[in-house]
Amino acid sequence: MRTYELAGGLSLDHLKIAERPVPSPGPREVRIKLRAVALNYRDLGVISGFYAPDLPLPFTPVSDGVGEIVEIGEAVTRFKLGDRVSGIFTQQWLTGPPERRYASSTLGSPLPGLLAEYVILNENGLVSVPGYLSDSEAAALPCAGVTAWHAIVSEGRVKAGDTVVVQGTGGVSLFALQFAKLHGATVIVTSSSDEKLARAVALGADHGINYRSNPDWDQAVLSITDGVGADHVLDVGGAATLDRSVNAVRTGGRVSIVGILSGARANNLDLIAVLQKKITLQGINVGSRAMFEAMNAALAAGRVHPVIDSVFPFEEAVNALRRLEQGTHFGKIVIAI
Amino acid sequence: MRTYELAGGLSLDHLKIAERPVPSPGPREVRIKLRAVALNYRDLGVISGFYAPDLPLPFTPVSDGVGEIVEIGEAVTRFKLGDRVSGIFTQQWLTGPPERRYASSTLGSPLPGLLAEYVILNENGLVSVPGYLSDSEAAALPCAGVTAWHAIVSEGRVKAGDTVVVQGTGGVSLFALQFAKLHGATVIVTSSSDEKLARAVALGADHGINYRSNPDWDQAVLSITDGVGADHVLDVGGAATLDRSVNAVRTGGRVSIVGILSGARANNLDLIAVLQKKITLQGINVGSRAMFEAMNAALAAGRVHPVIDSVFPFEEAVNALRRLEQGTHFGKIVIAI
Amino acid sequence: MRTYELAGGLSLDHLKIAERPVPSPGPREVRIKLRAVALNYRDLGVISGFYAPDLPLPFTPVSDGVGEIVEIGEAVTRFKLGDRVSGIFTQQWLTGPPERRYASSTLGSPLPGLLAEYVILNENGLVSVPGYLSDSEAAALPCAGVTAWHAIVSEGRVKAGDTVVVQGTGGVSLFALQFAKLHGATVIVTSSSDEKLARAVALGADHGINYRSNPDWDQAVLSITDGVGADHVLDVGGAATLDRSVNAVRTGGRVSIVGILSGARANNLDLIAVLQKKITLQGINVGSRAMFEAMNAALAAGRVHPVIDSVFPFEEAVNALRRLEQGTHFGKIVIAI
Amino acid sequence: MRTYELAGGLSLDHLKIAERPVPSPGPREVRIKLRAVALNYRDLGVISGFYAPDLPLPFTPVSDGVGEIVEIGEAVTRFKLGDRVSGIFTQQWLTGPPERRYASSTLGSPLPGLLAEYVILNENGLVSVPGYLSDSEAAALPCAGVTAWHAIVSEGRVKAGDTVVVQGTGGVSLFALQFAKLHGATVIVTSSSDEKLARAVALGADHGINYRSNPDWDQAVLSITDGVGADHVLDVGGAATLDRSVNAVRTGGRVSIVGILSGARANNLDLIAVLQKKITLQGINVGSRAMFEAMNAALAAGRVHPVIDSVFPFEEAVNALRRLEQGTHFGKIVIAI
Repeated sequence: MRTYELAGGLSLDHLKIAERPVPSPGPREVRIKLRAVALNYRDLGVISGFYAPDLPLPFTPVSDGVGEIVEIGEAVTRFKLGDRVSGIFTQQWLTGPPERRYASSTLGSPLPGLLAEYVILNENGLVSVPGYLSDSEAAALPCAGVTAWHAIVSEGRVKAGDTVVVQGTGGVSLFALQFAKLHGATVIVTSSSDEKLARAVALGADHGINYRSNPDWDQAVLSITDGVGADHVLDVGGAATLDRSVNAVRTGGRVSIVGILSGARANNLDLIAVLQKKITLQGINVGSRAMFEAMNAALAAGRVHPVIDSVFPFEEAVNALRRLEQGTHFGKIVIAI
Repeated sequence: MRTYELAGGLSLDHLKIAERPVPSPGPREVRIKLRAVALNYRDLGVISGFYAPDLPLPFTPVSDGVGEIVEIGEAVTRFKLGDRVSGIFTQQWLTGPPERRYASSTLGSPLPGLLAEYVILNENGLVSVPGYLSDSEAAALPCAGVTAWHAIVSEGRVKAGDTVVVQGTGGVSLFALQFAKLHGATVIVTSSSDEKLARAVALGADHGINYRSNPDWDQAVLSITDGVGADHVLDVGGAATLDRSVNAVRTGGRVSIVGILSGARANNLDLIAVLQKKITLQGINVGSRAMFEAMNAALAAGRVHPVIDSVFPFEEAVNALRRLEQGTHFGKIVIAI
Repeated sequence: MRTYELAGGLSLDHLKIAERPVPSPGPREVRIKLRAVALNYRDLGVISGFYAPDLPLPFTPVSDGVGEIVEIGEAVTRFKLGDRVSGIFTQQWLTGPPERRYASSTLGSPLPGLLAEYVILNENGLVSVPGYLSDSEAAALPCAGVTAWHAIVSEGRVKAGDTVVVQGTGGVSLFALQFAKLHGATVIVTSSSDEKLARAVALGADHGINYRSNPDWDQAVLSITDGVGADHVLDVGGAATLDRSVNAVRTGGRVSIVGILSGARANNLDLIAVLQKKITLQGINVGSRAMFEAMNAALAAGRVHPVIDSVFPFEEAVNALRRLEQGTHFGKIVIAI
Repeated sequence: MRTYELAGGLSLDHLKIAERPVPSPGPREVRIKLRAVALNYRDLGVISGFYAPDLPLPFTPVSDGVGEIVEIGEAVTRFKLGDRVSGIFTQQWLTGPPERRYASSTLGSPLPGLLAEYVILNENGLVSVPGYLSDSEAAALPCAGVTAWHAIVSEGRVKAGDTVVVQGTGGVSLFALQFAKLHGATVIVTSSSDEKLARAVALGADHGINYRSNPDWDQAVLSITDGVGADHVLDVGGAATLDRSVNAVRTGGRVSIVGILSGARANNLDLIAVLQKKITLQGINVGSRAMFEAMNAALAAGRVHPVIDSVFPFEEAVNALRRLEQGTHFGKIVIAI
């Protein structure tokens, strides 16, 4: 089979197609013929060595994908041949709160990823995906979809009438927009591009704020909410955005920390505001299989379609990753296999 | 001013229009010119003496209504002349969990009700109502709307993809249907009438079960949910329905007890099922001002219109109550003033 | 090895010692040499056929016990030879909320029980037990301890200053008393025996109510709580006690339904009280492995010793079960192996 | 009457005793003869102008105190003459979640404080204090006690077996230590003084870490918890401690942000750790009247005595504030009146 491998170094230039034997499943495992994978910023961080400078090579990256079960271990009971499934990001996190020991079971580092024609996974680390979704749409779910669900629904407990601020128009943010709208919330989206804001409004966003022309986007949120502030801000920027997120949220409100696009070290975070407004800052790191399944039920009930930016052929995976690197995409970048 | 009064006995036959002086507000009170009131089964129970056999007479019944502030006490700060407001059902329950001492502050018994041209209320016991609602629609909110919001959203924490069963098509049930749909849930409605089920489906219900032709409606719910059961059953029947509600709900599910239309004493309730399925049975009794305000925000965000069965003129209030008694209505019965 | 088996019929008279081959563990399983088992009312229900009239025979009953790992499957990673462990009651319920599919994985029916010299269990279905506990004390934990922890702590979220009512002095109730006291709550115990009440007070109970001399124990609870009612009532009686539990609890309070000693069908339950006081009735059915582990941490931190009524030798297991049947015990009845 | 007033400038040097007329209560107000007040760092921040540079002068500072009701408005129903009461810090926050509008109702800025012989307060802004407490002990509760209760119990939901880290030995931290122990938790205290650590252990702390001799106190916490981390860290330091708090807490754990003793702007906070460990950072700002009352019930049930560092006479209030400024105290500094 063909598989991408990082070999000889940690950078996009070291990612190449290799030919490897087709693997066979153990008793509780299945072999999946991948149909599509979707990219996350984390994949770039793995490839560049930011997450794990000592990653053992060769290594197959990319955590999210969907495929068909083509071979099945003798003890497998949850699935059958021909089922279309996705791997869950944290293979050991099935339900309940997170535990430290799960951290070593994430796909695409430290466990091998899905940028290959076949992959072997334990049946417990899989979910069925709703039939109405295309392969590209289904591939988009494991990290971006589940992270947004976890933040907005499982922890954020969004309800109709709430106001939710979503930073940017990457994969997690657009899922968050869709999930908030699915629950009747009012959604404010920020972006550096008026064109992307227009597309977000077309997806259901109620308000768009261009943070390039209006860097004080937190003040704009306060203005939209009559000075009260938003119920929930989904922070994907990290270092450079967190302080404004705290400023934009209401007394008793919530900021979900889901990304670190502008840096991993918060600076100048106003603790008096955190304290006086009784703000909850909640770190979110993807989620459990149970969250994935609950999200799938919601998607199917609402016939929600994830937003796909573009689909690249398998041979152009490196170009797909470069597009992610540029940051001009809107929605998920997919590689068809 | 004209006001209805129960006088000389407890029954619908003793409800008559009387002429009384227009009352004046105290420092923190306002005088409201009522525009519309809406009826609840509880009003019948008050009038018949079921709730309070020793109700001091004369007494003005009916708890729910909307009107305009026409006179204002000197210390009032939350409202101004001309504001359109509704009284909250439990005048003392502003926010947080319920407290025993609030029980004596409910409108329409023991406190006087709103079936009159004017009423005096403390400014703390009022909420603004969304401007897009008609007076009839706004009048429908205080008991039926808030009860449904409390059960489905505040306690039930409904989320997209959940399955919610709503018994019948009275006021609380139709609000529950609307709130569940507003959050992306799948809704199953039961009724004895195919025509009402068709109207419920037109309102957004996903499934209808006629419990007259199919008394085993709990089995029908299990069938619709692939044997799993519903996430939440809103029980309005009480004695005769609770056991089937328990049967229809999933492991770990919730039954909200919001009504006792078929009797106030549960019989034959299967405690083994309650225990083995880890079911939560949650009593719900209207709700707080904070819930009312959160509901109003949700209604406004979704431009949801309460379902009005019929509107009677003030002079025909007794006929309006008789229509409620018959139980053939669909949605709220309103009296315009 | 020796094992008790029900054979030829469902009754205590059909429970006999049989000689069977020592079983061997599969790859993820361990063989445990049992040291002590503890009895629950459920065991009597299984033996009498109340729970499962079609139980396939021969069958080894009793769900709770502790032992030492004496043989270990090749793929086992969570434990090692010599570890002292208990089986969790619901072998599949590791963490998170309950799921329907777990119901078929409970020990002592439908899965075989522990009244034997050896048992084979999957490593995921085990917990380590705190070293300071004797074998008898450790054997007492899986059903009675975890049920009480689940009700009082995981769901009940007991806090210092709360008032908790515990019905009777069986295993679950005494654990509930100990857990409530461990969190600084005030505890009221009911019993038909002044001598048992005195022993409960010696264990830390703040008040005892003899429901034989004072059948209106709910009124006594109201009196002790200045008319407010208790925060939480642990109901073990079921049919005959639930209505008084509802009466004894405060507005916004909680009744945990953990037993059905007086019958499984609630009659005459006052739904108006449930509704008007916004009571939560919560079914509780043992709990997850995560709850068991949290409980063990709490027991160890507080050096709490479970209450042991009596210890019988293996050969007298039937007498131990007869003692349970009589209901005169105080704490757990244990069989040493 | 005598009252302290800041006049002519914002500093401790401008705090002087003045003679003012005894005030009279309005209809829903009471006049309280103060017996004792207790100091918080916030009082120093108010006096120095850090919190409100434009504070209108003259101004009476200090938020916490206890006294006896000596005059009563005609409409007062919650209290009677002779009752011993404390003012709640946020006069408008009675129950439920915080709201923005409450922020302007805190005692000791912007509302006048209690460093005086008499004060007038609305009856809704008062709580009864447990009779077993001395005046000094009762005075210690409103800010320090309620903040610790809110963080550890209301939001932190501490349970037996949890591990809680408490920074330092100021008022909030010692209450947190006492509340955590009251619920059966294991408590780790940090301090720069071995002598204070010994006193904390005498109060019930399980472990002490001297952060002067061992600046890597987070590593010490990890070591004590077998590498797992604490369930909850109470952060009172702010800027200089928050990053270590994040490091010391377990996956899924909680850091309460209750103080900013080392600075109000967090720098270098590791967002990757917040995200990957799914940490909750929760700002806490005192609490509601309902929390105060729940705390009082817990204190009384456990006969807990707040830790009093020292008691100064009214005339030496400035010296009391200077002692607080020095930071060598252990527990609350009180001024008897």
